[in-house]
Amino acid sequence: MKKMLLTLIAVSCAALSVPAVAQFAKAEDAIKYRKASFTVMAAHFGRLGAMAQGKAPFDAQAAAANADIVASMAKLPWAAYGEGTDQGDTKAKPEIWTQAAKFKEAADKLQSESVKLAAAAKTGREDAFKAAFNATAGTCKSCHDDFRSK
Amino acid sequence: MKKMLLTLIAVSCAALSVPAVAQFAKAEDAIKYRKASFTVMAAHFGRLGAMAQGKAPFDAQAAAANADIVASMAKLPWAAYGEGTDQGDTKAKPEIWTQAAKFKEAADKLQSESVKLAAAAKTGREDAFKAAFNATAGTCKSCHDDFRSK
Repeated sequence: MKKMLLTLIAVSCAALSVPAVAQFAKAEDAIKYRKASFTVMAAHFGRLGAMAQGKAPFDAQAAAANADIVASMAKLPWAAYGEGTDQGDTKAKPEIWTQAAKFKEAADKLQSESVKLAAAAKTGREDAFKAAFNATAGTCKSCHDDFRSK
Repeated sequence: MKKMLLTLIAVSCAALSVPAVAQFAKAEDAIKYRKASFTVMAAHFGRLGAMAQGKAPFDAQAAAANADIVASMAKLPWAAYGEGTDQGDTKAKPEIWTQAAKFKEAADKLQSESVKLAAAAKTGREDAFKAAFNATAGTCKSCHDDFRSK
């Protein structure tokens, strides 16, 4: 009985030490969540892209609002790549887990560049905005190339 | 030719005057976006619910972090209920558009209550947090009852 209790405590502590997994009841919930956060991010990033590529007029206020949302969303998906979330309805490559440090670096890079993008948008300077947009878009592409299946 | 051009301009201006629709290339993109924003919101709201209902220990810092995300996400879905987004992969009821003022009131209520929830979480007082959680959860339920199909 004592042994069973100790095992239970050990299992509970293991769960506590893996907060990324513990935040989701099921792996499929984590996958759905991270895809949803990318969907929201992409919608706002797309509006910035239209401005950066001259398909829509540059509007500093709209750019700042969209970039703020991108910077907020960019913090979210990473906690949802816990153990067991490599299978299912996902394009996540095994390299996310086998090259975890490199994946974290890529995730951090998106977050830091999107913060710079929001700051650049707020200057109202179109050239600064475009440069920061391209730097951020580069982090999307490089992470997708390495860690997302086609 | 001149008439065709004027019609084109009129159509373009009409599109510009409906920013909610213009932000999405297709109705299905808007639907996917609003569902994604609710998915992200629900994940964080669920963690608050676990604390409010005593299924997880109250952790003021985690509660504040999750409530901040809920308050941010609560601003997003509404722009995606533009014209033409009543059909497709959605549980949205026609009342969203036929009772637009009531729907807007419900959307505003979620936003104001979730801001109060984030503030309550930051006080670190469990009773204040629970009360604010219940008030916010009430806005979810009442809006789902009126505007979302089962």
